[in-house]
Amino acid sequence: MDGNEEIITLDYGSGGKKTSRLIERTILPALCNPYLGELGDGAILPGASELAFSTDSFVVDPLFFPGGDIGKLAVCGTVNDLAVCGAEPKYLSLSLILEEGFPLSDLERVMASIRAAAEQAGVQIVTGDTKVVQKGRGDKLYINTAGIGFLRHPGLSPKAIREGDAVLLSGTAGDHGTAVMLSRSGLMEGEIFSDCAALNGLTEALLSGCRGVRVLRDPTRGGVATTLNEFVEGTPLGIELDESAIPVRPAVSAACELLGLDPLYCANEGKILAVVAPEEADRALEILRSRPEGREAGQIGVVTGALPGKLVVRTALGGRRILQKLTGAQLPRIC
Amino acid sequence: MDGNEEIITLDYGSGGKKTSRLIERTILPALCNPYLGELGDGAILPGASELAFSTDSFVVDPLFFPGGDIGKLAVCGTVNDLAVCGAEPKYLSLSLILEEGFPLSDLERVMASIRAAAEQAGVQIVTGDTKVVQKGRGDKLYINTAGIGFLRHPGLSPKAIREGDAVLLSGTAGDHGTAVMLSRSGLMEGEIFSDCAALNGLTEALLSGCRGVRVLRDPTRGGVATTLNEFVEGTPLGIELDESAIPVRPAVSAACELLGLDPLYCANEGKILAVVAPEEADRALEILRSRPEGREAGQIGVVTGALPGKLVVRTALGGRRILQKLTGAQLPRIC
Repeated sequence: MDGNEEIITLDYGSGGKKTSRLIERTILPALCNPYLGELGDGAILPGASELAFSTDSFVVDPLFFPGGDIGKLAVCGTVNDLAVCGAEPKYLSLSLILEEGFPLSDLERVMASIRAAAEQAGVQIVTGDTKVVQKGRGDKLYINTAGIGFLRHPGLSPKAIREGDAVLLSGTAGDHGTAVMLSRSGLMEGEIFSDCAALNGLTEALLSGCRGVRVLRDPTRGGVATTLNEFVEGTPLGIELDESAIPVRPAVSAACELLGLDPLYCANEGKILAVVAPEEADRALEILRSRPEGREAGQIGVVTGALPGKLVVRTALGGRRILQKLTGAQLPRIC
Repeated sequence: MDGNEEIITLDYGSGGKKTSRLIERTILPALCNPYLGELGDGAILPGASELAFSTDSFVVDPLFFPGGDIGKLAVCGTVNDLAVCGAEPKYLSLSLILEEGFPLSDLERVMASIRAAAEQAGVQIVTGDTKVVQKGRGDKLYINTAGIGFLRHPGLSPKAIREGDAVLLSGTAGDHGTAVMLSRSGLMEGEIFSDCAALNGLTEALLSGCRGVRVLRDPTRGGVATTLNEFVEGTPLGIELDESAIPVRPAVSAACELLGLDPLYCANEGKILAVVAPEEADRALEILRSRPEGREAGQIGVVTGALPGKLVVRTALGGRRILQKLTGAQLPRIC
C-alpha cells in the first residue's frame, strides 16, 4: 500500500461532508441512474402488481477471487434469488459496511464491478447506505443488497414437486466454493474460477419456454446437496441422484480432494437447480443448453416416492449413500 | 457470561443444519408471517402502483442503550426513511451479520425488539439472510434492513422549498446521539433516552391533513444541522434558525457540554424535520402536537432568500453563526 493512498477513515461514516464526498465521488458515479440522483432516504419506483423482494449480505473472504469479487457476487446473488422466484429482477439496494483503513482504490474496483454486473443483469441500484466501523470490527468490506422484482411466473414451489419429476442442474457443481477456498489458501491458483453470474436471462427463457417447471433454486451456501434436501425434507418424496450424471470439473474434483470437501456441498453462484415434470425434461434441457450459462446442463436425478424426505446418491459403483444437509461450517464466508 | 450459555459459532453461518435451526428457532418465531413461512430465497408480495424502497445498515455500539436497541433502530430507521418519502411502509427485509461468539440470548432479545417494533409500525418482515463472521471480524451484530412502501403522497422534495417557508421540528433535538454516547462512556446513565420510534403514523397524519408540506426528512446521522444543510446547499435559498425555539432537553444540553458535542449535530431517531408553506405552518404544528411523537413540535426557523445555500442560527444573544455540514466523525457508530 502506497503511503499516499487514500483510505477509508471513520469520518467517511459520519453522515457529514466526508460521507457526502464518498457517495458523490466513489459511489454515485458507478451507479448513475435517475432514482439515485435525488439522494433521498429512499427511491420512488414505478410499480407493478405482484412483487418479489429479497436480501443477502455478502461477507466473502477474500474480496477478490478468480472469476469475480464481492461486488459482482452481491449483485448476482440477489438477482438470482429473485429470478428463481419466477420474478423479473428490477431494482436493487446497496448497503456497505466498510472497515476503517480499507483502501478507496479497492472500493472503486468493487463499485465498477457492481455497475458492470447490474448492467449485465438489467437491474438498477436505486437506494443505498454506507457505514464505517473501526479497524478490527469488520473485515475490509461487507455488502448487503436487497432486490425487488416483478413476478412473471407465479406458483413455483417445492410443494409442486411430484413423484417421477426430473431434477436438472444447469451446469457444473462446486466451482464458486472451491475457487474461493483455493484463493484463500493460495493453492492451485488460477485453475478454478467462480461461476458467479446473473441467471435471470436463463430462468426467464426456461420459464417462458417450458410449462412443467415445479421449482427453481440457486444452490449457493450448502451446495446442491443442501438445496435438494430442503426440497424434500418433511415430505413423502425423496430424490435419487445419479453421481455419474453430475457434472464436476476435473480441477474442482481435484481441489475438493485436496481440501477434504465434497463438490455437492460447495457453493455455486451461477447455477440453477430445476425440478421439472418428466415429459418436459427434454424441452427444459434444450432451453438451458441453448444459452451459455446453461451449456453444460443435465438431468442429475429423479424424484421418487421410495425414499421419503431423503436425498440419496447412486454412486458409479452401484452403491447408494444418503446426503444429509450440510452440518457444521464447511466453508465459512464463502459468499 | 454463563459457561452453559449457547453462543453463535461459525456453523450458524454455514447455510446448513445449524443455519436452519437458528432461523427456525430464533428468527422465524419472532417474525411469524405467511411470506416468511415459505423460506424461499425471496418473498412474493401483493403489489401496488408506485413504490418506495430504502435500505440502511445498523452498526450501533452498544447494541442496547437507554430507549432502544439495534433491533428497534433497524426497524424504525427504515420505516422512517420510507415515511419521509411520503410512502406507507409495508414490507421489510432483515439481514444479520453475526460475530462468532455472540450470545444467542442477546440475539433473542434483539429479535423480540424487532418484532415489537415491526408490529407497532404495522410492517411485515418478509425476507431475510444471516451470515456469521469470525471473532474480531465484526462486532457482535450488524443489521441491515431494506423496506418497500407504497407511495401515498408524491412530490415531496427539497426542490419544492420556497422563500418564507416554515421549518418545523417534531420534538427535541439530539436525544438519540447523546443517549448512545453516554451509554458508551458510562456517564450520566439512565438520564437520557433515545427517541427511537417509528414515525409513519405521524407523517401520514401530517401529509393527509396538511397540503403545504414541501419536504420531510428524519435528521439521523449528522443531526438537524446536517439535514437542513442538505435541503439548501447549492440553491438560492438559505435557512435561518432561531436557537431559542429549538427544543433540547436540559439533560441533553448538559451531556453535550460534557462530551463536547452540539445537539444540532447529534443524531435523532424519532424526529422529523418538515418544511411547510407559511400559511399551513399552524395547521401542521397542530397535527404534529396532537400525537405523542409530535407533542413537543415547534417552528424552529424560516427559509430565506438572503442567505443562499447557508444554514444560520440566530443565538439567544442576537448573534448569528453559520452551521456547516458535519465535518469528521463526531459520533462513530451511532446508528
